Amino acid sequence: MIEIGKIRGLMAERGAAAIVVGDSDPHFSEYPADCFCLRSFLSGFDGSNGTLVVTNDDAALWTDSRYYLQAAEQLKPAGIRMVKQECEASIPEFLSSVLKNGDVIALNPWNTSLSEEKEFMNVGAIPCGCPDDGFSNKVVKISYDEDLYESLWFGCRPKMSDAKLFVHAEKYSGESVKSKIGKCREFMRSENADAMLVSTLDEIAWVTNLRGADSLCTPIFYSYLIIEKDSSTLFVDVEKMTDEVELYLSANGINVASYSAFAQYLREDLKGVAVLVENAKCNVATSRLLSDTIASKHRYIERQKAVKNSVQLECERRIMIDDGVALVRLLMWLEKNRNNKLRETDVADKISELRKNSKEYVCESFDTIAGFADHGAIVHYSAEKGRDYELTPNNIILIDTGGNYLGGTTDITRTVSLTDAPSAEQKRDYTLVLKGHIALQMAKFPVGTAGFQLDTLARQYLWQSGLNYGHGTGHGVGHFLGVHEGPQSMSKKSSDFELEEGMFITDEPGLYRTGKWGIRIENMLAVKRAETTDFGQFMEFETLTLCPYDRKLIDVTMLTSDEKKWINGYHASVIKKIKKFLNVEEIAWLEVQTKEFI
Amino acid sequence: MIEIGKIRGLMAERGAAAIVVGDSDPHFSEYPADCFCLRSFLSGFDGSNGTLVVTNDDAALWTDSRYYLQAAEQLKPAGIRMVKQECEASIPEFLSSVLKNGDVIALNPWNTSLSEEKEFMNVGAIPCGCPDDGFSNKVVKISYDEDLYESLWFGCRPKMSDAKLFVHAEKYSGESVKSKIGKCREFMRSENADAMLVSTLDEIAWVTNLRGADSLCTPIFYSYLIIEKDSSTLFVDVEKMTDEVELYLSANGINVASYSAFAQYLREDLKGVAVLVENAKCNVATSRLLSDTIASKHRYIERQKAVKNSVQLECERRIMIDDGVALVRLLMWLEKNRNNKLRETDVADKISELRKNSKEYVCESFDTIAGFADHGAIVHYSAEKGRDYELTPNNIILIDTGGNYLGGTTDITRTVSLTDAPSAEQKRDYTLVLKGHIALQMAKFPVGTAGFQLDTLARQYLWQSGLNYGHGTGHGVGHFLGVHEGPQSMSKKSSDFELEEGMFITDEPGLYRTGKWGIRIENMLAVKRAETTDFGQFMEFETLTLCPYDRKLIDVTMLTSDEKKWINGYHASVIKKIKKFLNVEEIAWLEVQTKEFI
Repeated sequence: MIEIGKIRGLMAERGAAAIVVGDSDPHFSEYPADCFCLRSFLSGFDGSNGTLVVTNDDAALWTDSRYYLQAAEQLKPAGIRMVKQECEASIPEFLSSVLKNGDVIALNPWNTSLSEEKEFMNVGAIPCGCPDDGFSNKVVKISYDEDLYESLWFGCRPKMSDAKLFVHAEKYSGESVKSKIGKCREFMRSENADAMLVSTLDEIAWVTNLRGADSLCTPIFYSYLIIEKDSSTLFVDVEKMTDEVELYLSANGINVASYSAFAQYLREDLKGVAVLVENAKCNVATSRLLSDTIASKHRYIERQKAVKNSVQLECERRIMIDDGVALVRLLMWLEKNRNNKLRETDVADKISELRKNSKEYVCESFDTIAGFADHGAIVHYSAEKGRDYELTPNNIILIDTGGNYLGGTTDITRTVSLTDAPSAEQKRDYTLVLKGHIALQMAKFPVGTAGFQLDTLARQYLWQSGLNYGHGTGHGVGHFLGVHEGPQSMSKKSSDFELEEGMFITDEPGLYRTGKWGIRIENMLAVKRAETTDFGQFMEFETLTLCPYDRKLIDVTMLTSDEKKWINGYHASVIKKIKKFLNVEEIAWLEVQTKEFI
Repeated sequence: MIEIGKIRGLMAERGAAAIVVGDSDPHFSEYPADCFCLRSFLSGFDGSNGTLVVTNDDAALWTDSRYYLQAAEQLKPAGIRMVKQECEASIPEFLSSVLKNGDVIALNPWNTSLSEEKEFMNVGAIPCGCPDDGFSNKVVKISYDEDLYESLWFGCRPKMSDAKLFVHAEKYSGESVKSKIGKCREFMRSENADAMLVSTLDEIAWVTNLRGADSLCTPIFYSYLIIEKDSSTLFVDVEKMTDEVELYLSANGINVASYSAFAQYLREDLKGVAVLVENAKCNVATSRLLSDTIASKHRYIERQKAVKNSVQLECERRIMIDDGVALVRLLMWLEKNRNNKLRETDVADKISELRKNSKEYVCESFDTIAGFADHGAIVHYSAEKGRDYELTPNNIILIDTGGNYLGGTTDITRTVSLTDAPSAEQKRDYTLVLKGHIALQMAKFPVGTAGFQLDTLARQYLWQSGLNYGHGTGHGVGHFLGVHEGPQSMSKKSSDFELEEGMFITDEPGLYRTGKWGIRIENMLAVKRAETTDFGQFMEFETLTLCPYDRKLIDVTMLTSDEKKWINGYHASVIKKIKKFLNVEEIAWLEVQTKEFI
């Protein structure tokens, strides 16, 4: 945390009437490295969503409802007020209303996307150097001031990670880098481009079949990739290279340059070259350095990455067995120790420890959420040692957790009762969520269907009882990469991206009773082909996750015979697939959990 | 039909290299009057969707799959080729590719909307008089040539209807014209406009509480309405006025001017006045005549019109009884006469005759579709006397029909078996459609839900069996107005317009077995409030339509107990509400049809 007065001093020196500071990195990563988290550093608030605005007489931080409590508390020492982004004007709107004619808003060109710039320009702000239209009484200017943002670290900027890269073998990825780059070049041709900028880190990792460890939960590495007609260049810090990776890259015709050489390459080597960029993924600095850009809306690599091939699917099925074994052990351990004063953070530690038994396990795919009783109703709850609940055998716990394995990424949520006699209301809530969760897994749908068309299937039973949940029903999942990926998704937000064969998506309806408990049930699914009829090709889901539901929480009388049949089939497949990795006691426990419903 | 050579002669005289001719009117009505149907006149093709393009060496008509057969046949005499609009380039794309630099495309400014003009400009066409950007090698010009389009009628243009206007009393409309215009003025203020152009005919009828008979099935009248801050002017042919309407308008402060005086009023009286227009509803001629326009995307009047008040709802419930009585009599008549060599067109004539028993009945709300056997599988089938099927007691018939009553508009589809022993496949098909149809009527959903979020509920059982239908699930319905209205709808197309309390919407899933039979089941629903819970306000539907389903086609074993309960409740309410208007024989018949399922 830095005194606001010191920040204003720097602003004055550089002629800025306002600064806008986020935690985003130049690649718009979901989990940016510390050396990019300037907003957390300056404000003291370290939630995943927040943007700090400082003007000469105000300091405010925009964040969403997940963080109202945390932000209010963490911002107090610095004297920064919190703005509820759902309720108030956006930052561009706010600044355009409070600033005076000629005032300058400073932005960091490296973490402002072209889409974000457009929001400022939509309210009439104009980048310095651009002529104004002469019609407005008030013109606010935007200054892209890289040096100011460097200074705002006051010499305390954390070092960039120097974790080594490694090759993600083709036995996992199922497609060579040469093949992937070949397809990118075809796409470039179809768009009349001479080059393609790949700046999103999971896309670079996917194209190159390389992984790193620059982020806690996602095996990405800071870099840029430029694919040209006859060559490709990876911009990455040389300390991260190993001999193996150097040989691999050179064998695949990919040049290596330093991360810091990127700007110069754009300016000089790509002068006059038509480069394909995506506005939501490209930062302003990059765009300004290019002389000729072609905007693409196809999200080409993102879509290619989302459609898993048969090798990836086989790997995912395999690591789901490892993940399932760890989860079954966790649930058994939890049941056996429910009277032993366990705490929420113990649950997170335990699953991490259990996953390490897998030879392919690398790291968590996100911080485990273990929310007991009313903590479960806080959708993005994060337990902290010392402030977490002690588990008592009288309520339910929501556990949302995932692992990154060489063979794939997992994401699962199970809600478990710590008492053998949960209340009728808890059972009803759980079973309503479960019915929606199952409806999706039983669904067939015509090819061309997008996720938003299926979202209601998971909500219908809750709605019928006057209940609902505020989040989406599902998101894409990477393959030994990010636990959230696009372009597919499942929520009420419409999307042009259909559910294609091979895509992974989560199925995670929930129900949150503020002050009481939270319920979420989540499996990962793969989209696959079903039959072709006179009415066209139909699609369905394969359930990837292998872990029993808590039968104590199921009110069997609320289930249809089809639903019972589906659960019985699922439980039979869970025990069949993971049995051989369990000891006698574990098998006995799992047999009870997966007993047929009749 | 006119020889293409004669058309090309006129084009040459006026310097046009291409003409584009549709059947639309200046108000973009769904059922334009004959005097606007120039495409039908020139080409011989009279389907509801078709656009004729004539160039110096080509004559082609764009239409959709509903009309492939009909268009191919009707276009033969004129030697016009048919273009499948789903498969080929759009008209702007086609013309921009075949025309030469400097060539002129003629468009009728009165039936080209601003949105359509934008499509031409998106492919680089430029209205004559506008400077080109100097960058393109080829520039195609657009000429708005009203006189050319008048000449294309070759003196044979039909006369405009002179049907009289009449007042739609407040006991039906539930809101005075003064109140409606007051709200429009509030909206104008909020948009900083001085005036508002209302050019869509059902919107004018709704605002003024006037009706006419210029269209076969919709009680609209050709006119424009301009609402200004302190006055309003209705532009309508004076022959259509009665003393009563004149008095009514003057009592409500609405000036009357001739329909033909509209252009001059825009140019002179609205000079310098900021006028609110909607681009999709405003034609180019109108827009060019205005000096200052403000584009609005709110579809304000359309939305106001869609939300029915309590008086309208009461009227609709009342006329649904009349409509239900007519339908029950139709179905009974059909059953009794199934061996009497009835034809499809007899069914259409009969329902029309039966509806006339209602004192409030005015006209059909659309041409009845009565499709027997494989004709039922043609979604927009239209039976023609002499070419229609004779009904035989061995298949099913689909009947989609609606009436316009003073108290409201109806739209219903029933599918009926003419044999007592329909096949297992027919029963399965029917019951799957019925389950989806019921699912919507049983649904609850949170306030703010749009129709596209519910569309899948009606499809889920069909999808599960590899079946589907190609049309949307539902559309809005006017109140003694158009049978199709927005802004709400229910299909996979996403929409910003939620389902609001008081909106009417149809629920009409279907299944079409080409060469065999077609099934559609349709009720009209009203959106109403359900309970408010901790999770917010919930909404549900009230079923308005009163007519039994064909129990011969229901496979009861496929129904859940909730579905049976719903059908029993619905059938009980049908008989309870319409019984007192039926004779003894009819009641006996209806009692059999509505017997409880157990």
